[in-house]
Amino acid sequence: MRREGERQLPFDPAAMPADAGVVFVGSVRSPWTERSDCPKNMAQARERGRPATIEIAAAYRDGLEGLSGFSHVVVLTWLDRSDRDLIVQFPRHAAAPRGTFALRSPARPNPIGLHVAAIVSVDVASGVVAIDAIDVLDGTPVVDLKPYFASIDAFPEATRPSERSGA
Amino acid sequence: MRREGERQLPFDPAAMPADAGVVFVGSVRSPWTERSDCPKNMAQARERGRPATIEIAAAYRDGLEGLSGFSHVVVLTWLDRSDRDLIVQFPRHAAAPRGTFALRSPARPNPIGLHVAAIVSVDVASGVVAIDAIDVLDGTPVVDLKPYFASIDAFPEATRPSERSGA
Repeated sequence: MRREGERQLPFDPAAMPADAGVVFVGSVRSPWTERSDCPKNMAQARERGRPATIEIAAAYRDGLEGLSGFSHVVVLTWLDRSDRDLIVQFPRHAAAPRGTFALRSPARPNPIGLHVAAIVSVDVASGVVAIDAIDVLDGTPVVDLKPYFASIDAFPEATRPSERSGA
Repeated sequence: MRREGERQLPFDPAAMPADAGVVFVGSVRSPWTERSDCPKNMAQARERGRPATIEIAAAYRDGLEGLSGFSHVVVLTWLDRSDRDLIVQFPRHAAAPRGTFALRSPARPNPIGLHVAAIVSVDVASGVVAIDAIDVLDGTPVVDLKPYFASIDAFPEATRPSERSGA
């Protein structure tokens, strides 16, 4: 069921021959088991005050060496329950429809979620990265972790459209 | 040829059955055609002072509607020339080997590049997003664009290990 103004692609990227394949390197353990209960973004997730963990599969755990020296981590997830064929969306919070590449909605051609979290602890042997919060369902696959660098990732002066203007 | 202390996975993720498939939604047009000339990160790319563009394929262009209201965009690329089986790496800038998930190296199990760029202009009809700089080779595939939100993406206080400590 689409809201007025929403547009679908004439094909479903999930059913197309892939241009490249991803492997799941781990998964998220979060307090959220129902979509209706899951925070919609990282700001909401932090407000809920519930920590989470990333569990990295055994084969990839050496990749965590040195991560504990960073305060923040970028988590890339694969939002496997999301539609991939919605190219213009009309979220409830928005004043007008907006393109998928101008939204952080999980519905996108490649449903890769981007989440910047504070690192609580890293245990390389067990593959567990404890973080302050996350806004995805328990069991969501993880495709990458990256250390967060303020020098290239932090733009506190970045601006967004005013919702009042309908943008 | 691996540097001392580097470790490979016992398998190559590129040769494994994929857990999910990505579709390329566009590509980067950058001034960098040789790997030796390509900036190693976004800070270096900005220093070089050469702008770049993202070209979104026709089918996906409606997804750009509304993006021009944002000052910054997150570009997710597929670094298709990178090794995927290196799980501990010893970069030239580092004092010791470090896990792939503690590095921004393009070599990783899923070679997804994350680049935060300033938006210069967005043309929905032609699918062209002009940005201030990028640190990938010309022709690199794009898998996603996301609007940058300072409220969830900017952590200017984030810290990293001191290189002097060898971390």
